[in-house]
Amino acid sequence: MTFRRTGGEEAWSGKILTVRVDRFVHDDDGEEVEREMVVHPGAVAMVAHDGESLYLVRQPREAVGEQALLEIPAGKLDEEGEEPLDTAKRELIEEIGKGAREWEHLVSVWSSPGFTDERYHVYLATDLYDAQPDEDPEENERIEIVRWPLAKLDEAIEQSNDAKSLIGLLWFRAYKRD
Amino acid sequence: MTFRRTGGEEAWSGKILTVRVDRFVHDDDGEEVEREMVVHPGAVAMVAHDGESLYLVRQPREAVGEQALLEIPAGKLDEEGEEPLDTAKRELIEEIGKGAREWEHLVSVWSSPGFTDERYHVYLATDLYDAQPDEDPEENERIEIVRWPLAKLDEAIEQSNDAKSLIGLLWFRAYKRD
Repeated sequence: MTFRRTGGEEAWSGKILTVRVDRFVHDDDGEEVEREMVVHPGAVAMVAHDGESLYLVRQPREAVGEQALLEIPAGKLDEEGEEPLDTAKRELIEEIGKGAREWEHLVSVWSSPGFTDERYHVYLATDLYDAQPDEDPEENERIEIVRWPLAKLDEAIEQSNDAKSLIGLLWFRAYKRD
Repeated sequence: MTFRRTGGEEAWSGKILTVRVDRFVHDDDGEEVEREMVVHPGAVAMVAHDGESLYLVRQPREAVGEQALLEIPAGKLDEEGEEPLDTAKRELIEEIGKGAREWEHLVSVWSSPGFTDERYHVYLATDLYDAQPDEDPEENERIEIVRWPLAKLDEAIEQSNDAKSLIGLLWFRAYKRD
């Protein structure tokens, strides 16, 4: 199974998102298909803990009408040329006021490959220390930091309805919990 | 933390996706924020196994340039008024040619709540039987069915880069594997 892009155009562009309608031809039978695609810069997400507590956040998510979704810290890859790991280090400090001396890449995933090229890079961040961001955030993100006992990991998984958070917490539970 | 929608408009609409730019006011400080949001019908995804094998699929994903992404069977909620569980039952037959006598809802999650209201409903489907779809699919979806030994679940998790598939397989590993 192979395909090639044969054409397409930008259909809409906003401050963060761009929508493209592209055409592809499949080599096996020559069929042409059209795809509506949301171009997204990608994101990082971090499972951060100090051996006793996970650091989670509650954040309003206007797009889905949720007043305070329980998530792991995360951020968009919105600085041109910045490596995902460096974004993760910066965003962890911005979101929870902690740096981490130990970093491990867990997994990189497409959030919804039927319609967007958004990809999350998920990291484990440990050996935490207090830290202040270099710059003030541009917008009030209304992030509430939640210290969540590591011993109650399953309850965090049960209460989280956010894909990147579930992947981080379930991956941690499967392969990284002592 | 509470917010209310105060206005907005449809910015673009295609065959599957609609983009809105909406405005919200946060009650705590009266700040108004603007959000670019992709309106999506939502989807179902199914962890299906017969006690020996998981039923996975490989499918070309033009939006992310992947020729054959390893996924669990899934489908969009594109039939008006159809309940997610009924969509799951129909899509499992369409994708892998199997029905299931036992269904269990595992979790429902927002795929990327910063910019889209897409939600996946993930099910466990067991006690499988051979079945044929009522209608031919509208488009050749080029789905390759992959029987994957249950004993090699961790290798499936390692090879999957799709969020809904990872959530289904990791959830199954955590709570539903015998």
